[in-house]
Order: sequence, then C-alpha cells, then structure tokens
Amino acid sequence: MNFHVMTLFPEMIDPVLNTSIIGRAVKSGLINIDTVNIRDYAFNKHSKVDDYTYGGGAGMLMQAEPVYLCYRSVVDGIRPDAGHAGKDGSTRIRCIYLTPQGRVFDQETAGELSKEEDLILLCGHYEGIDERVLEEIVTDNISIGDYVLTGGEIPAMVLIDAVSRLVPGVLNNDLSPEYESFYDGLLEYPQYSRPEIWHDRPVPAVLLSGHHENIEKWRREQAIIRTMERRPDLWDKYKGKS
Amino acid sequence: MNFHVMTLFPEMIDPVLNTSIIGRAVKSGLINIDTVNIRDYAFNKHSKVDDYTYGGGAGMLMQAEPVYLCYRSVVDGIRPDAGHAGKDGSTRIRCIYLTPQGRVFDQETAGELSKEEDLILLCGHYEGIDERVLEEIVTDNISIGDYVLTGGEIPAMVLIDAVSRLVPGVLNNDLSPEYESFYDGLLEYPQYSRPEIWHDRPVPAVLLSGHHENIEKWRREQAIIRTMERRPDLWDKYKGKS
Repeated sequence: MNFHVMTLFPEMIDPVLNTSIIGRAVKSGLINIDTVNIRDYAFNKHSKVDDYTYGGGAGMLMQAEPVYLCYRSVVDGIRPDAGHAGKDGSTRIRCIYLTPQGRVFDQETAGELSKEEDLILLCGHYEGIDERVLEEIVTDNISIGDYVLTGGEIPAMVLIDAVSRLVPGVLNNDLSPEYESFYDGLLEYPQYSRPEIWHDRPVPAVLLSGHHENIEKWRREQAIIRTMERRPDLWDKYKGKS
Repeated sequence: MNFHVMTLFPEMIDPVLNTSIIGRAVKSGLINIDTVNIRDYAFNKHSKVDDYTYGGGAGMLMQAEPVYLCYRSVVDGIRPDAGHAGKDGSTRIRCIYLTPQGRVFDQETAGELSKEEDLILLCGHYEGIDERVLEEIVTDNISIGDYVLTGGEIPAMVLIDAVSRLVPGVLNNDLSPEYESFYDGLLEYPQYSRPEIWHDRPVPAVLLSGHHENIEKWRREQAIIRTMERRPDLWDKYKGKS
C-alpha cells in the first residue's frame, strides 16, 4: 500500500513514520510513504505558495495552482490516467484532505481505507487551501477530531498509522488487531504485568487463576463497566447494536 | 507553559514540534517541550520495560515501575511536592495518559489545558501500560479519537499542537484563533485566494465586492450550509445552544 503525502513540511513526516511498527512495515516493503513538497510546485521564483484571502480575514491561504501541479505530478507518478474518474469514478485514486471540516475519522474508516492500493493525503497549512482546487482534486474530507491544529501533517500521521496497522502483515501475528479497543465497540479492559504486587496493589486474582473462561468473563465485565463510565455514548451505540 | 512527554520514542516527538508555529513558540520560550525516555528508568541491565500480560493475551505490556520512576523524576524536576495532591488536589500537576479509553479530546479541553503551567503527557506503546501505575499517577485519560494507533506519541503531538496554539502569544496577532473552526460551533466557510479565475472557476463575486456586511453574511450562510451537510451532529448542538 502506498501513501503519497502532499505537504509544505515533509521533514515533519519522515522521522515519525520511520519508527516502531510503521517503520518496520516500511522497511519490509508492506507499505510505502512518499512525501512530496508542495513548495517545489510554486510557480514563482520565491517559492511562494500562499496569498491573502479574498474578502479579507486573518492569515494566508495556500493557492490553488501549486497544490494542483503537485497533485498532477503525484498522480502521473502512480499512473497517468489515475486522476481522472471514469464514468463510475472507478479509476480515480482517492485524495484525502485532512481538515476539521471533514467527516470524523474512526476505526471503520481506517478499515475501509486500508483496502486501497494508493492514497493521496493533502496537508493544509496556514489558514487553509483555496476551495477551488479542493473541489477539483479531493475525493474525501477527513477530520481526526474536533480541535484546531496548525496543519494537516499530524493528522496525516494519525491516518497513516491507523490505516497501516490494518494492512495484512503489518502487525505481527501475535498482535491481532481484532482484540484491540473499538473492534467490538467496547473500551479495552485493564491489563497487568509483573510483578504480582506493586506498591501494595495486587493483580486481580482471577488473572492468575489460569481459568480462561473466568478470565474472559472478568475482562468483558471490566470492558463494559469502563465503557459505561467513560464513554456513555459508545455504550449506547453498543447496546443498540447487540 | 511546559510539556513533559514520557515516551519510549523521544525521537518521534522532537522533529515534529520544532517545525512551524510550535517550533517558533519553543524558540521564543513561550512553550517548552521536554521528552523523557521511559527506557532510561528500566531497572534491569537490558533496559527492558515490557513483559507479558497476566491472564494471557497478545502482545507485551509496559510495566509499572519504569513508568513510575520516570514520572517521579519528571515531577521532582518540576518541584518535589508536585506529584502529591493536597487535600483538595490543588498542588498536583496534571498527568495525561493518551489512550483510546479516555474522554474524547476537543477544542474545549484544549482551552482548559492551555491554562496549566505544566502538563505531563504519558505515551503508551505495545498493548498498553500496567493499570496500577495508571491508577497511581494519571489525573486525566484523554483520547484523540475513536481509532487505534501504535502508541501515544502521535496523540501527544496532537494535544501539544492544539493546546500550544491557545497559549497567549503563540499565534501572531493577525491569526486570531477565535475565527477558526469550532470557535463558534460551526465549520469554517470556503476560502479563496488569487487568481480571481482558476480553471474556469471564479471567486464568488461577493468576496470581491468590498462590502463587509455582505461578505460576513455570505460566510455565515456557507458555514451553516457546510455544517448541516457535513456534520449534522454539530449542527444539532449549535441549534441547541443558540
């Protein structure tokens, strides 16, 4: 799976994604992350990519043309026809704009995106990007949450991390994503490791019992209690489904 | 404002936060970001910080003691009494565990946290952290969204970015956060920059009119339309408040 990240700050992306599980997946060739600097597609000698906002307003906006030229170059690098939708849109590569104005990213969306071969991620900066180029190239507006960040770079890392983990082979066999938070709609139960007693706090006895059925029962109860206490919204959804 | 980040991967954090607006705020001394490697507090010669999970289960868990020793060292560096809550909890420095099991981070929480002088951020990795040390040191469990990531490092960056922007002086005077998405509960209106016509798409005429009242009216309408279309949940909240 190939991620193509269009950004003004490629130096932010690389060190993060060369670490830990994602770094290993890159090294083993399971995923590939290309960062492309939008500034390289500026059409003036100062490499300027931003300008004032029509109608007034604080801050600078990224202009349409450098973003568009960068996008064309990325698409041509994948395959020359890939930026043009067929009549059914089938040949078009998904281009995701990371923006607070998008639909909210969740584990289900991560699963859906993990089935794509190529994903283009567009990171805005400053006050945003000229709307017209977004209309022309973006297939998905995605928000990682209801908060304001400096740019789309950290959200792109969030998306790449969450999606990559679901690409077959990226997690070791013993790290099955099915057992993790949100896979069954409940929050994860508490977990304990050695020693058995730490700061006068013992590990719950059932976890030492070796009785797998009781352990499963305890964990499920704990997951339910935690979800009810911390995320009543998820609990309501869970009840609705089951 | 000081962020103290406890992590197994300090090399992920630094390059990201030395860039752009946050990097400038660090250089000017408005905010300070210390990363502390939990592995430096491992109590064995192999610097091992993880072990199997009691009761069975995939993957390794971060053990309580290295996390606790790291925390004590951070707190002692701030002020020796700061880890102990007074009877009213007033002297305790907030220690945030980034976890999908936390309350969901939003702009309001960012505003609340931006008033703290020190924030300790605890990044988990692998399958998580022994519950007992979390009970002992963590004051806030915070989730950046309903998706599974490899560790707490990228979520810590999200939180630092969102919170730092609200620290007085971090944004330039002309970049007022009040005008950005979520400050009035609506999504942001579309924005346009030069040229006036791009790929046969003209800038909406009202934005070129110079008529400030009409521009404001158009922008508000666009914000409402966009919020209704893309985030009916936010629109319902907005209607409820107004």
